[in-house]
Amino acid sequence: MRNIKLTIEYDGKRYLGWQRLGDNDKTIQEKIEGVIKLLTNEDIEIIGSGRTDAGTHARGQVANFKTTVTMPLAEMQQFFNRYLPQDIVVNHIEEVPERFHARYHAVGKQYSYYVWSNPVPTVFERNRSFHFPQAVDLEKMQQAAEKLIGTHDFIGFSALKKSKKSTTRTIESITIMQEGNMIHFAFNGNGFLHKMVRILTGTLLAIGAGELDETIIDQVLNEKIRQAAGETVPSHGLFLDQVYY
Amino acid sequence: MRNIKLTIEYDGKRYLGWQRLGDNDKTIQEKIEGVIKLLTNEDIEIIGSGRTDAGTHARGQVANFKTTVTMPLAEMQQFFNRYLPQDIVVNHIEEVPERFHARYHAVGKQYSYYVWSNPVPTVFERNRSFHFPQAVDLEKMQQAAEKLIGTHDFIGFSALKKSKKSTTRTIESITIMQEGNMIHFAFNGNGFLHKMVRILTGTLLAIGAGELDETIIDQVLNEKIRQAAGETVPSHGLFLDQVYY
Repeated sequence: MRNIKLTIEYDGKRYLGWQRLGDNDKTIQEKIEGVIKLLTNEDIEIIGSGRTDAGTHARGQVANFKTTVTMPLAEMQQFFNRYLPQDIVVNHIEEVPERFHARYHAVGKQYSYYVWSNPVPTVFERNRSFHFPQAVDLEKMQQAAEKLIGTHDFIGFSALKKSKKSTTRTIESITIMQEGNMIHFAFNGNGFLHKMVRILTGTLLAIGAGELDETIIDQVLNEKIRQAAGETVPSHGLFLDQVYY
Repeated sequence: MRNIKLTIEYDGKRYLGWQRLGDNDKTIQEKIEGVIKLLTNEDIEIIGSGRTDAGTHARGQVANFKTTVTMPLAEMQQFFNRYLPQDIVVNHIEEVPERFHARYHAVGKQYSYYVWSNPVPTVFERNRSFHFPQAVDLEKMQQAAEKLIGTHDFIGFSALKKSKKSTTRTIESITIMQEGNMIHFAFNGNGFLHKMVRILTGTLLAIGAGELDETIIDQVLNEKIRQAAGETVPSHGLFLDQVYY
């Protein structure tokens, strides 16, 4: 069996997220599996590096699937990009050892969140950023972000009520850059809990706007109370940039 | 009467262009006039700097209208951006002398055209660039573009069959820049004929791809035969960047 690794870019706007939900054909996974069915005539389940929520975008989602089809890789990539909808593209394709597993073997991820920081809205970035019209203090946000770096139980910064699995994660870096009216948050870590990047961004924005004090971060890490943190910012500002193996 | 000048950004995808066409409500002009009607309760016709085609975008379209309404400018801008659809934004608003006319007083324009130059398509730029998968020679295109600079009769590079008005225009500059997989063509001149930027871009691309020789430019300028020039590239790669007064 060949094991094929795909690197996938998608605009999440029209989809209910990555993960298949029955057979409604409104998830990225189903769209890709549909093309694999055309290609191989087999019902093959692909393995993604992890879920992305409804509306969230990806520049570098990774998935793998196993097949006996002998088609050359370049031709296979062209086949995908001919039959996938225009808002999903296979950017890169390669053959990997049979033991490679896109979810189990992922050791880290980078996510980006984009905030349009101006009272006048944006036309061209409206579907890929969150419009936050209040003024924010970048330095304050950077200082607060430093408190999140390292290994912590992040359950208070997630949508999880409780969890049988560990909710401890390591954040390697958070960089916050302003380019014109756009603020770009980049998060690197070994893994992120459900909605964690969006809640972290919402909390940092509330600190930057002076609505929350930066001590809230220690409080949420220690007391694990979701309600104390900032709002969950919308999914359409979020991008899965890269998965590390 | 106050004379109000608007600078407008729009995503042309959903519209039949700038110019009102009866009352179908599918043009940018009608959307803006609709909000002016809400604002002033008067039927006011706005004057645009010029038309843009169906699907073409703008970063800096300019229009003016006259009104007796006394609302402050900042409030008026907020009103526009609250009631306009999300794909049209008033970026800037100012009061100008009563004689100012957005079309008659325009002395120049800048247009940009974006070409996605890679066999693998783009997800995020798909609605704002033309996918041209063949390899192109940037230097060849730059050399050919030099022949277009200056004052010429550009009717052979337009969609006009014949014209009672002058079809002589002056192109000040054409710059061609590659940023990653995107080729950005920027055209500056005192005015552009119908579809002229798209036909010039199509011709330069054909030269860059080796399908046409650069001598075609002299031939079309001299013999004024539209058929000899390159194809009209699609409207969704075109942006009206700026209007000069």
